[in-house]
Amino acid sequence: MKNTFGQSVACTLFGESHGSEIGIVIDGLAPGIDVDEDFISSQLSLRRPKGRISTARREADEYRIVSGVFEGKTTGSAICILIPNSDTKSKDYSSTRMLARPGHADYSANCKYHGFEDYRGGGHFSGRITAPLVAAGAIAISALSKKGIYIGTHIKECAGVSDVSFTNIAQDIKKLGSMEFAVLSEEKAALMQSAILDAANDGDSVGGVLETAAIGVPAGVGEPWFDSVESVLSHILFSIPGIKGVQFGLGFDFATKRGSDANDSFQMENGKVITKTNNNGGINGGITNGMPIVFSCVVKPTPTIYKTQQTVDFINGKDAEITVQGRHDPAIIHRARVVVDSVTALALCDMLSQRYGTDWLAN
Amino acid sequence: MKNTFGQSVACTLFGESHGSEIGIVIDGLAPGIDVDEDFISSQLSLRRPKGRISTARREADEYRIVSGVFEGKTTGSAICILIPNSDTKSKDYSSTRMLARPGHADYSANCKYHGFEDYRGGGHFSGRITAPLVAAGAIAISALSKKGIYIGTHIKECAGVSDVSFTNIAQDIKKLGSMEFAVLSEEKAALMQSAILDAANDGDSVGGVLETAAIGVPAGVGEPWFDSVESVLSHILFSIPGIKGVQFGLGFDFATKRGSDANDSFQMENGKVITKTNNNGGINGGITNGMPIVFSCVVKPTPTIYKTQQTVDFINGKDAEITVQGRHDPAIIHRARVVVDSVTALALCDMLSQRYGTDWLAN
Amino acid sequence: MKNTFGQSVACTLFGESHGSEIGIVIDGLAPGIDVDEDFISSQLSLRRPKGRISTARREADEYRIVSGVFEGKTTGSAICILIPNSDTKSKDYSSTRMLARPGHADYSANCKYHGFEDYRGGGHFSGRITAPLVAAGAIAISALSKKGIYIGTHIKECAGVSDVSFTNIAQDIKKLGSMEFAVLSEEKAALMQSAILDAANDGDSVGGVLETAAIGVPAGVGEPWFDSVESVLSHILFSIPGIKGVQFGLGFDFATKRGSDANDSFQMENGKVITKTNNNGGINGGITNGMPIVFSCVVKPTPTIYKTQQTVDFINGKDAEITVQGRHDPAIIHRARVVVDSVTALALCDMLSQRYGTDWLAN
Amino acid sequence: MKNTFGQSVACTLFGESHGSEIGIVIDGLAPGIDVDEDFISSQLSLRRPKGRISTARREADEYRIVSGVFEGKTTGSAICILIPNSDTKSKDYSSTRMLARPGHADYSANCKYHGFEDYRGGGHFSGRITAPLVAAGAIAISALSKKGIYIGTHIKECAGVSDVSFTNIAQDIKKLGSMEFAVLSEEKAALMQSAILDAANDGDSVGGVLETAAIGVPAGVGEPWFDSVESVLSHILFSIPGIKGVQFGLGFDFATKRGSDANDSFQMENGKVITKTNNNGGINGGITNGMPIVFSCVVKPTPTIYKTQQTVDFINGKDAEITVQGRHDPAIIHRARVVVDSVTALALCDMLSQRYGTDWLAN
Repeated sequence: MKNTFGQSVACTLFGESHGSEIGIVIDGLAPGIDVDEDFISSQLSLRRPKGRISTARREADEYRIVSGVFEGKTTGSAICILIPNSDTKSKDYSSTRMLARPGHADYSANCKYHGFEDYRGGGHFSGRITAPLVAAGAIAISALSKKGIYIGTHIKECAGVSDVSFTNIAQDIKKLGSMEFAVLSEEKAALMQSAILDAANDGDSVGGVLETAAIGVPAGVGEPWFDSVESVLSHILFSIPGIKGVQFGLGFDFATKRGSDANDSFQMENGKVITKTNNNGGINGGITNGMPIVFSCVVKPTPTIYKTQQTVDFINGKDAEITVQGRHDPAIIHRARVVVDSVTALALCDMLSQRYGTDWLAN
Repeated sequence: MKNTFGQSVACTLFGESHGSEIGIVIDGLAPGIDVDEDFISSQLSLRRPKGRISTARREADEYRIVSGVFEGKTTGSAICILIPNSDTKSKDYSSTRMLARPGHADYSANCKYHGFEDYRGGGHFSGRITAPLVAAGAIAISALSKKGIYIGTHIKECAGVSDVSFTNIAQDIKKLGSMEFAVLSEEKAALMQSAILDAANDGDSVGGVLETAAIGVPAGVGEPWFDSVESVLSHILFSIPGIKGVQFGLGFDFATKRGSDANDSFQMENGKVITKTNNNGGINGGITNGMPIVFSCVVKPTPTIYKTQQTVDFINGKDAEITVQGRHDPAIIHRARVVVDSVTALALCDMLSQRYGTDWLAN
Repeated sequence: MKNTFGQSVACTLFGESHGSEIGIVIDGLAPGIDVDEDFISSQLSLRRPKGRISTARREADEYRIVSGVFEGKTTGSAICILIPNSDTKSKDYSSTRMLARPGHADYSANCKYHGFEDYRGGGHFSGRITAPLVAAGAIAISALSKKGIYIGTHIKECAGVSDVSFTNIAQDIKKLGSMEFAVLSEEKAALMQSAILDAANDGDSVGGVLETAAIGVPAGVGEPWFDSVESVLSHILFSIPGIKGVQFGLGFDFATKRGSDANDSFQMENGKVITKTNNNGGINGGITNGMPIVFSCVVKPTPTIYKTQQTVDFINGKDAEITVQGRHDPAIIHRARVVVDSVTALALCDMLSQRYGTDWLAN
Repeated sequence: MKNTFGQSVACTLFGESHGSEIGIVIDGLAPGIDVDEDFISSQLSLRRPKGRISTARREADEYRIVSGVFEGKTTGSAICILIPNSDTKSKDYSSTRMLARPGHADYSANCKYHGFEDYRGGGHFSGRITAPLVAAGAIAISALSKKGIYIGTHIKECAGVSDVSFTNIAQDIKKLGSMEFAVLSEEKAALMQSAILDAANDGDSVGGVLETAAIGVPAGVGEPWFDSVESVLSHILFSIPGIKGVQFGLGFDFATKRGSDANDSFQMENGKVITKTNNNGGINGGITNGMPIVFSCVVKPTPTIYKTQQTVDFINGKDAEITVQGRHDPAIIHRARVVVDSVTALALCDMLSQRYGTDWLAN
């Protein structure tokens, strides 16, 4: 399905870094959901580069909703959101068109598209295409919050610095909501930003780990086997450029545990079934168990760096050197976290609408 | 799509642990692919429990191909493979039906299926349902090998013991093919098995990490965004019970790298573009770059243990204790690796058939 | 998606005329639906050839439910139903393997499958593969009836003889339910059967038109554009071999009407919105309006006839003659009607489950 | 999948009659296809209302391609085409908002969308949304023509007047290409137009039948069962507003034929297999046989008429009268034919790309 994801609630993504507009179609959202245009703007703002730890490309992200919203509410038909590209400098890229930037899609895209791809600024592969995902995700996040479902992501680790863990997830999610640099510990946030600047000063870049929690999802959502909650979430999370690993609950730390340590004991609490620990990240057998859904994603260091690198000229088939020009981010992890929240919300809307029907989100 | 995965080549899985048969339908495989029934048997044998490090349930796995194969070759129509359940002891489970086994799907399944689920032996959630995946995967693995595409998985880590890394991937894959306990280092294999037995003696279980490589996949396969190779592979990998994390290339180790260390430099080798390192696991921008596809999965410790655990009686809504009876595995990682190979092969067949057409696999 | 149809409730079909078994997987039906095995048998019996107006091939259709049903109810996981092929006479077909039977799929299948298709008895193209659709449809029909939704089909026209129209649809559906030869007028039924026998005596065959009504479907089901009720129903109806036309409401008779005659006026009746006429067959803008869904399908004359026909030997690329041997039907329309009911029920279950959620059918 | 159709080549449609823009995303077209913007304009022009036999709403249809096209060729990523709505008169509709226009989707849409639908000018249900389908179809038609595949549609019947039949299909398709009123016989065209004007003068409307042929499609395309060529084409054809019947080859005329008359004899012609007649419309067993694909669609009379009609006020639940104001078409059949060509081309691109791979259309 290439550029379309989802079954009951589906997103179709389009656009290139230097085209006139980029955008998304969200299809299948219930009719009657409030569309809060200010919230969309503020979410887009969280994704937007800012300050010295981000690229100098500055986009206003003045999105337009072209369809599917009427008198401030979703109509139930497909919503198309467009975001114009304004601050494009195409000349930056043309001279290095045949040089495969290491860590980027230039070479693999050329193998796939045979040279017809729009190569300017990463074209369809540009991280900029995540902006429409964020706009769509904002509608989904709003709708979910009306149903008592909240999502939050913090930078768990960046450039060797680790944040503190979630303590009270509901409060932590609330706190993270509008933070520009979403780290639970202020002190750790400062250390991370300083490490990012160090890398930037070296013409280099850093990566990190994002940890996400979603609360309020009812037990019984998801499928055994192919459409497990893990399958569906990882599918859309791995769609975000730069994400190279996804783990649920303890994730790779399960490798060193024994079953007796890893299993989450069930217990009754106020007439409700909960688990004592949440090592499985709220998912058993691919299906939610009512506990917070917890997962983390690793974001690789931004591949664009200012150091000279070995590469090939893939058009002429010979070795070459590349010194990348243009405007780039020494870190994208702080911008990526709102993308993670957004795609999580979209995937949850899809799973919930499949389970409870197409009107559920608005009821 | 629940129990169906794939677009050009799609699998539909069915069955319960204690039903008469379990099975799979594989649809969309090219006509004219050789079906090697002995190879299917030998792959099923690799998945089958054996020795003291596995459950005492012993199944013959005498599969039958019901459709889609004629005179030893695929016809191009849907292939149904059935595997009878013979060694079922349903009485083992009935008395604990209302007790949620920690780490299992009993409670979440009950929330989803409202008590109508077949609870015997884990029902549709049983690891036993991976047997049809292995049978189907065997046909896919055979077909891919004719096209020069090979897949292999080793136990990278188990119970605190780490295997050596891949050195010569092509040779390593060959070596791993028929190993009962797929570890590259014999010495490490012995240590792992001993650690599994230790856990078994304690009535406990262990997990681990599987690392997989696929070679020979042409550059240019996969999609940007929603159907990235990472998205598609992780989707099906997370369908395997017990897998809680998937990472490509360096995976979570990217978190501590800088871009200059993480980027894979391109270079020419014998007129072909390769990368010097393969930190991205053969995938750039969601699309293969011609290097080996490398990923790893964490397998959580088998949730069934012989120790008494706290839990709830979810039918009567009260706290309870559970001491699981029945036959179980102290580790499943050595059995899971053939499942990982199988689903990888099925997903690759799908992506390749989408790209090159429905006849490609047989040409 | 080839052999899979549906989104929330999906069917996957497999099997060949002379394989060991044919079957279907139905995925996504709500947990807790009663599975009435006698009703499945009686529906299969309606499809089964009988008497002198049908093929001499007699199959017991002793189906087995392999998965997804537990203690007489659906579990919510995938249901696999198998039907053995017992009365196969493969030798009938081998000598004419290279001769394209006019009106059949032999030649087009050979172009698609390059000679690897199972050619015996029509292989995967055999009308026999509709038996699993009927078995699956029986479960769907039962489930719908619990929700007040009923489906019925009569032979509107056969061999130049027309049946009377629906008068009281609810009563007519009830009456048609168990009829072997589903014609509303007994007199017309006799004329049709006599015309079929005439054709049979000439070594020839006849076609006809089936008209179907579904009552009780709530208003507001379906989608504008691509998943209109007409789109979804026609998609599955055209999957039935021999169906070459589908029309809703007045269908092709709309061509000669003016808008003022064709439009269905709305009116209130007992506080409910109805239409005075039902020219649109219960569907406006692709969405149900609460009136009976009414459509008709044309079934072409069975292509297998006993007369000698001109054809080609497509393996050797030369003109040839064919005189078909074997057992065949002079008409299939009376057998096809239960297939039409079945696929209609399956498609409705899918559309209703998408709209109201996966539990709705059982509530 | 609601507003998305297709697997390898997929279209996502969005927009409302009185929104700022309507549009489509076409995903999966091969990279390197020439995009002829003039041809897109001329196809849009064929759909556009003109003269006295069409609505007075006049739209410039100045489309913009927002993504997926670079330097005049498809890039291989998703193509978004936008068409602004300029000539909207929203005040025409607001006063009759609660009155269900007979034959329209107002009432059924209200049942589905609970009043949140954009009701102005038919909203998402407006025939205007076919404009983006035509723009997308134009790219598909161009691409197919480079592969020797041509599609043409004529008005076979309108207001009781019948056109002559196809004689030389290749020449007829060529001739029909740019005709404003696509009738093979000039004389019949004049009679039809006169009959449409008669209806218009009466404040009424007419319907008709469109007949389509596609030549050059290789034998062996399509699937048995659920994705038969008939299933896929009818699915998208029934998505066009006003189409209430689809038939292939002889269609409903099969009902009165015997097998010996209906079967298409095969014969060799210049070393190629052809059929003597083409009663099956180029499709056997759901799969193309290399003969022209021939089908026809009935278009119901435009539901909007100027006569006063009985209806209901569905908000207040009472009987009412409606006299529709605004600008409307006494016939849409001459405009619909380019929509039929367009969706046929899109569906063929999808089926061909599935079969031969994603690059085939551009090779």
